Amino acid sequence: MHLDILSLFPEAIEPYLSSSVIARARQADAVDIRVTNFRDFSDNRHKTVDDYPFGGGAGMLLKAPPLFAAVDHVRALRNLDDEPRVIMMTPQGRTFTQEIAHELKTERHLIFLCGHYEGFDDRVRQHLATDELSIGDFVLTGGELAALVVVDAVVRLLPGVLGNEESSRQDSHEHGMLEYPQYTRPRKFREWEVPEVLLSGNHKKIEEWRRREALAKTLTNRPDLFEKLSLDERERDEIVRYVNGA
Amino acid sequence: MHLDILSLFPEAIEPYLSSSVIARARQADAVDIRVTNFRDFSDNRHKTVDDYPFGGGAGMLLKAPPLFAAVDHVRALRNLDDEPRVIMMTPQGRTFTQEIAHELKTERHLIFLCGHYEGFDDRVRQHLATDELSIGDFVLTGGELAALVVVDAVVRLLPGVLGNEESSRQDSHEHGMLEYPQYTRPRKFREWEVPEVLLSGNHKKIEEWRRREALAKTLTNRPDLFEKLSLDERERDEIVRYVNGA
Repeated sequence: MHLDILSLFPEAIEPYLSSSVIARARQADAVDIRVTNFRDFSDNRHKTVDDYPFGGGAGMLLKAPPLFAAVDHVRALRNLDDEPRVIMMTPQGRTFTQEIAHELKTERHLIFLCGHYEGFDDRVRQHLATDELSIGDFVLTGGELAALVVVDAVVRLLPGVLGNEESSRQDSHEHGMLEYPQYTRPRKFREWEVPEVLLSGNHKKIEEWRRREALAKTLTNRPDLFEKLSLDERERDEIVRYVNGA
Repeated sequence: MHLDILSLFPEAIEPYLSSSVIARARQADAVDIRVTNFRDFSDNRHKTVDDYPFGGGAGMLLKAPPLFAAVDHVRALRNLDDEPRVIMMTPQGRTFTQEIAHELKTERHLIFLCGHYEGFDDRVRQHLATDELSIGDFVLTGGELAALVVVDAVVRLLPGVLGNEESSRQDSHEHGMLEYPQYTRPRKFREWEVPEVLLSGNHKKIEEWRRREALAKTLTNRPDLFEKLSLDERERDEIVRYVNGA
C-alpha cells in the first residue's frame, strides 16, 4: 500500500508515523508512507497557500491550486496504474468507522489532504477529492490528527502488521459490541481482586461471563450499538435485567 | 490549564504538541502540557508494564500498578488543589463530541491515560479513571492519537488561543450543522468558477445562500444531524426539495 499525506506541518506528524506499529509496518514493507508539504506547491513567490473567502467572513481558506499541483506531483512520483483515493479530512465528511477502515485497506494508493485554517476552497472537494471523511463531531485545529487516525486504523489491518492476528479480531467495534473487561496480575491490587471466575480454569464459564459483560458494557455505554446487535430475545432480556441490577 | 499525558510513546506525540496552534497556546501560557512515560513506573526491574490476561485470550494487557503510580507522581508534581479529571482513552468509552470539549475546557487539570496492546487492567477504569472516552467507532493501535484529538479540540477553545474568536464560533459542529462551502481566489481555476452570488456584494443574498448550502450539506452528508435541528417546517421542506433537485 502507498500512502501520501499532504500537510502544512510534516514535522508535527512524521514522528508518529515512525513509531510503534506504523514503524513496524513500514519496516516490513507492508506500507510506504510519504508526507509532502503542499506549501512547496504554492503558486506565488511568497509561498502562501491561503487567502480570504469570497463573500466575506472570518478566517482564511486553503487555495485550490497548490493542492491540485501537490496531488499531481505525488501521483507522478508513485507512477502507479491505480487511481488513488484522494481523501479530504474535514468535519463535513462521512464519519469514519471500522467498516471504512476495512474498505480502505484493500486500496493500493491513498492520498490524504489535511486542511488548516477555515478549510479548503470547495473546488478541492468537488474536483480533486474522491472521499470526504470526518473522524467525529468535534473541531480540530487541522486535518493532521484525523489523517493519522485513519492511517493508523487502516495500517494495523494490513496483513502481517499485527503480531497476533487473533488480537485484532476480538477488538471493540469489530463485532459491533464493546470488549469485555480484562484483568492481569497482580491478582489483588490494593483491596481490589480479580473476579473469581477468571481464575477458575472453567473455559465455558469464562466465555459466558465475558459475553455477558461485553453485552452489559455495550448496553450501558453505547445503547445505540446494543440496539443494532442481532440477539435472541431471551439473551437481550437477560442483559437488560443484569444491567438494571435485577 | 494543566495537562498530563501518560503514554508509552512520548516521542511519537511530543512533536505534535510542539507545533501549530498547541505550540502557540503553550507559549502564551494558556496551557501547560507534560508527557510522562509510565514505563518509568513499572513495578519490576525488567521495566515491563504488560502481562497476560487472566482467563486466557490473545494479546497483553496493561497492568494497573504503573498507571496508579504515574498518576500519583504527576499529581504530586502539579500540587494542585483541584481534583483532576483522569481520562482513559478506550474504544469502550463515551463518544467524544464538541459538547464534551466545551465541558473539559473549564477544568483545571486533565490527565490522559493512553493504552496500548489489548487495553488496561479493568481496575484502572474502575478505581483510577474518572472518564472513559472514545473518539469513534474504529480501532487504533493505541490511545495516543485519541488523547491528542481531545487535547487539540479542547486547547483551541481556551481563551486567547485562536487568533480570531469568530472563527471558532462558525465551525461545523458548533451549531449542529455542517459549514457552508467556501471559495477563495482565483475566481476561476481551470474551468471552475466561484458561485456568482459570492461576488455580488449583496450580503443578504450571501447569507441566504450560505444558510441554504449549510443545511443542504447537513441533510446530504449527515441526515442524523439534520434531524436534530430545530427548523420551521417551511424551511425544512424547502431544503429537502432543494437537495432532491426539485
